[in-house]
Amino acid sequence: MTAATGPMLRAYPGDLPLDPPLLTRAVDALVTCDEACTACADACLDEAGVAELTVCIRTCLDCADVSGTAVRVISRRTGYDAEISSSLLAAAVLASRACALECERHAGMHEHCRICAEACRAAEAACRDLLVTVR
Amino acid sequence: MTAATGPMLRAYPGDLPLDPPLLTRAVDALVTCDEACTACADACLDEAGVAELTVCIRTCLDCADVSGTAVRVISRRTGYDAEISSSLLAAAVLASRACALECERHAGMHEHCRICAEACRAAEAACRDLLVTVR
Amino acid sequence: MTAATGPMLRAYPGDLPLDPPLLTRAVDALVTCDEACTACADACLDEAGVAELTVCIRTCLDCADVSGTAVRVISRRTGYDAEISSSLLAAAVLASRACALECERHAGMHEHCRICAEACRAAEAACRDLLVTVR
Amino acid sequence: MTAATGPMLRAYPGDLPLDPPLLTRAVDALVTCDEACTACADACLDEAGVAELTVCIRTCLDCADVSGTAVRVISRRTGYDAEISSSLLAAAVLASRACALECERHAGMHEHCRICAEACRAAEAACRDLLVTVR
Repeated sequence: MTAATGPMLRAYPGDLPLDPPLLTRAVDALVTCDEACTACADACLDEAGVAELTVCIRTCLDCADVSGTAVRVISRRTGYDAEISSSLLAAAVLASRACALECERHAGMHEHCRICAEACRAAEAACRDLLVTVR
Repeated sequence: MTAATGPMLRAYPGDLPLDPPLLTRAVDALVTCDEACTACADACLDEAGVAELTVCIRTCLDCADVSGTAVRVISRRTGYDAEISSSLLAAAVLASRACALECERHAGMHEHCRICAEACRAAEAACRDLLVTVR
Repeated sequence: MTAATGPMLRAYPGDLPLDPPLLTRAVDALVTCDEACTACADACLDEAGVAELTVCIRTCLDCADVSGTAVRVISRRTGYDAEISSSLLAAAVLASRACALECERHAGMHEHCRICAEACRAAEAACRDLLVTVR
Repeated sequence: MTAATGPMLRAYPGDLPLDPPLLTRAVDALVTCDEACTACADACLDEAGVAELTVCIRTCLDCADVSGTAVRVISRRTGYDAEISSSLLAAAVLASRACALECERHAGMHEHCRICAEACRAAEAACRDLLVTVR
């Protein structure tokens, strides 16, 4: 967990539109997922078998971008819009599930894919759990 | 239109999963929307009446982030995933519509909101038209 | 040029810290560069000879990220900070020059590298010209 | 610290161009800084005294964008380029120092500014320490 997630939530001057523990978990999982996917795409690029990993690289790039944007949107509370938050969480669930499925195919051969798949699964679960509470 | 959108599409070595003219229009509209929203949030910050514009600033920041990520996802063709593309286009439709609605409320008073609302409506329409073709 | 760059500059309520024509040119060149680099990295991934293009892909990913952030920083005028603007323009000059040099090595074989190198050279020149005016 | 930083570094197939403990610390500090700045800009927007916080909001937005891009650049090892890494670390040092200075001015009144200033100082120090080792 990053040191700032919980304290920043508590320091927000207004009402929080989302459940703080679920929101904290989603933010932290998405931040870790963004970072793991960025590093996994780069590690795949350096593998001798990069030609077998092009779909993995692309899915990692998408998942990193979607996770990073989802964190920003759910980290904002002013002028909260349930529809936009939901749509980003739904996109993050799809992107992290797709990336987990792809990385799991290579997890036996590449440790970076195994770690990345785990980070994606955690993000997928945290976003799903938060998504059902958004209204 | 940026100088690169059409030529880069034509230079892609594989099959294009999406209709080139609709894709080009969506990429260009999202790029313009990202830029207009970033500049509008900043112009709102500089207005004497910034306290009345905080929801507008927040919605512009979300719309800029979502537009920027949607461009990246739909600009990638390798390992194309219709579900991820659709979810980002749907998020971009919602974010640009919300931002257009908010900016239109201030368009009579602030020229930057009028221009931004127009860029958001163009992005919303282009993403809707592309979204119905994604499969 | 995107439709929003010039009009948004003129709609800003305060003084502009940077020369409008040079700023407009840099914003447009960086936006085009970001988009070209994102698409070139993806096109490289789809090439049969992807194993020869891994440095090109990485440099394109860096250049896209740096260009996108440089646009955001120089598009903001409120609370203008010459040091931060300069450092991002300097980073954009380095990233776009490195990407142009790498893409030029593949430009004879891959049209997407040729177009991307051209977009990078335009961004490098526009950022250099703006950078010398920042104070 | 996110769960993925260290393990992903160790899973990289090639040589690491930067010192792993310093790199890990910089990545984690930048990730926390990006998140704190995004949340602080949003908390400032919700304050009754938002008109006094517009420079703070702008500096937080810049620092979040620069930190996020610096993480991505230093997280990539394939095709490592010392000049690009250095320029992003230098930009992150400037952006996080400027944001710390601005947030420290409001730290007595706003807890989110106090936490954000601390995250920015940690990022500034971690980037400085890594920067002197880049070659």
